[in-house]
Amino acid sequence: MNLLAPTTPGFRLASRCSRLQPSAIREILKTTASPEVISFAGGLPAPELFPVAEIARAAEAVLAEDGAAALQYGLTEGYGPLREWVAGYLADTAGLRVSPEQVLIVNGSQQGLDLAAKVLLDPGDIVLAENPAYLGALQAFASYEAQVIGVHSDAQGIRPEALRRALETAPRRPKLLYLIPQFQNPTGTSLAEDRRRAVVSLAAEFGVPILEDDPYGRLRYSGVALPSLVSSPEAADWLYLGTASKILAPGLRVAWLVASDRAMAERLVTAKQAADLHTSSFTQRLVWQHVRRPGLLEEHIRGLCSVYGWRRDAMLFALERHLPAEARWTRPEGGLFLWVELPPAIDATKLLAEALREQVAFVPGEPFWIGTPRRHTLRLNFSNASDERIEVGVRRLGAVVRRALG
Amino acid sequence: MNLLAPTTPGFRLASRCSRLQPSAIREILKTTASPEVISFAGGLPAPELFPVAEIARAAEAVLAEDGAAALQYGLTEGYGPLREWVAGYLADTAGLRVSPEQVLIVNGSQQGLDLAAKVLLDPGDIVLAENPAYLGALQAFASYEAQVIGVHSDAQGIRPEALRRALETAPRRPKLLYLIPQFQNPTGTSLAEDRRRAVVSLAAEFGVPILEDDPYGRLRYSGVALPSLVSSPEAADWLYLGTASKILAPGLRVAWLVASDRAMAERLVTAKQAADLHTSSFTQRLVWQHVRRPGLLEEHIRGLCSVYGWRRDAMLFALERHLPAEARWTRPEGGLFLWVELPPAIDATKLLAEALREQVAFVPGEPFWIGTPRRHTLRLNFSNASDERIEVGVRRLGAVVRRALG
Repeated sequence: MNLLAPTTPGFRLASRCSRLQPSAIREILKTTASPEVISFAGGLPAPELFPVAEIARAAEAVLAEDGAAALQYGLTEGYGPLREWVAGYLADTAGLRVSPEQVLIVNGSQQGLDLAAKVLLDPGDIVLAENPAYLGALQAFASYEAQVIGVHSDAQGIRPEALRRALETAPRRPKLLYLIPQFQNPTGTSLAEDRRRAVVSLAAEFGVPILEDDPYGRLRYSGVALPSLVSSPEAADWLYLGTASKILAPGLRVAWLVASDRAMAERLVTAKQAADLHTSSFTQRLVWQHVRRPGLLEEHIRGLCSVYGWRRDAMLFALERHLPAEARWTRPEGGLFLWVELPPAIDATKLLAEALREQVAFVPGEPFWIGTPRRHTLRLNFSNASDERIEVGVRRLGAVVRRALG
Repeated sequence: MNLLAPTTPGFRLASRCSRLQPSAIREILKTTASPEVISFAGGLPAPELFPVAEIARAAEAVLAEDGAAALQYGLTEGYGPLREWVAGYLADTAGLRVSPEQVLIVNGSQQGLDLAAKVLLDPGDIVLAENPAYLGALQAFASYEAQVIGVHSDAQGIRPEALRRALETAPRRPKLLYLIPQFQNPTGTSLAEDRRRAVVSLAAEFGVPILEDDPYGRLRYSGVALPSLVSSPEAADWLYLGTASKILAPGLRVAWLVASDRAMAERLVTAKQAADLHTSSFTQRLVWQHVRRPGLLEEHIRGLCSVYGWRRDAMLFALERHLPAEARWTRPEGGLFLWVELPPAIDATKLLAEALREQVAFVPGEPFWIGTPRRHTLRLNFSNASDERIEVGVRRLGAVVRRALG
């Protein structure tokens, strides 16, 4: 299978295209998206939990009350009342005090990653990130030809001593430190409380802005809620990304990119104007109509946490029963994913082909690694399948792993 | 007024940011968006013509029939039935025969411009464009540090002999030829039929792909409909941009970028994946629910053409009555804009301050020019104001111009 994009004879491509390759994994999984396959591969919310009736009510209200504005061009910065709501929501739930002028509404977190990269990264610039790291962020950085350096991370998140070493030895001062401090994608681990101050202080000491990506922070099933990393008093310059995708619905493509100073926020607005003018006036108002109703969002999040927590437990239980004793996995307190380390003899990318024959899918760890991949790792999603299917799927996975071990 | 974005002390910006400045004009106009001002400045469709009730019906149907998918993540390429509809629509209305696999759904045409630039343009690469040209396209090209060379254009569009000279004398082979062949923004002019073959053949001869931007093609109020430029048999490599913004509603942010070959379409998909994963699953389905109903879209376009054509005539009539004899303007057969050339003594950017005091707004020609601006030019929009307000606004404009002439 040729995974490079085919050549485009009449078009002469920009040099960044050599860094922008279609994802091999995505292509493999696309060809096998049949309902018989139990998929732990995507990062999809459970569709049966979408508040479809509430969104329908919100759509009706938006079009009845404010239809012309919802269908017209809007400001690049975003819909004013939604930006105000985001500022209040971050104060209430993430300990982050910002003004609405620091908030830019974007088409999902991925656009926030793209705009941050567009404004900050020249070819060859350095970004530090946890290793392994979120694939979409790696793609966004690659599309501006940045060099990502992976920092050793463990079950408590990024290691401060490894971060200091990376900061001291980087060939140039890094432009960004990219982190998912809560329920990281792909590992599901969180940055431990006793590491937070060290990480934030190191970034400030070396003059490296933090990009905190926080799509899952509200999806906590055990342990104690923590404020956002960049709300620490030690934090200097930062960007923060939140989204409606995981707490409401990803199909609306509404997220928020927040900057620690207004000048940077204005730069991001200018970049977004050139990128797509603005995010849908209609979907921004839909989200606002939903979240403005007292208690509705919090009730929905409680429902999500209850179901996803149950599914996480079902997966942990099934892994215990079906995976060989040599396998290890993370025990996330929230989010959508956990991370499995198989015996080193197993290449998870090769295992995927076997697994698909047994009608179970996952994402091999390989593409998430910066530098040399640890090929015996894989990512499992537990939000998208029922607990019964989780049990069956993990049993199938266990059989495939045992067979691979011979 | 300081139009440069303020400095961002803790963030070190990418070099492209020096090319990405907030639009001076936009900032001036934003501060004066009061209802007393009669604005010919924006490019806004008439909000009173939005099919709000039909969109509400479509929203209800989407959520009732396909709610979970409308709220879930979707394919980067776009919603399948919408891509199929676009292929059929282009065959029916633009003489363009493409497969749905060549169609990428984007968040408005601006994102199409951004993705084309991202895939094709390295810093210093050359883009040829009509002069003056659409500001949003110039911003997209600038954000990838391309060099845009303006090609002399007149009331019949880009001049083939000027295009040949530009192709022969460009320091490097241009990566793109950017054109709005129908009802251009900002001038309202169209590429004359007897120039089309020459333009397309020159692009093919010199191996320069055409990017045809066609937001207004269906908004024709007089003259004979023409197929898309790139449907010419002489066309070699091309990209084509169409949009629901002007025929339905810009607030939905749904447009389509079509490539002449599938390999290029795949490259654009990969770039879009890194940019924002996909366009809203919900608004894509909304558009599809609307356009799939037989006759509805065509009836709506007929209504738009009737009102906008009337407004165009009102503006042409008012210009005749109120502008001094030395002024010249274009007589567009469609679209949203016309272009005024005042006596050379007048600087339209300075005139705008005077005009705003008299409660009328326009966009000075200056930012649309590539290279040396002709400062006595300005753009007027005729779609967003009623014919009565057009008469009053042009009368105010005429008074300001006469006063400036002394």
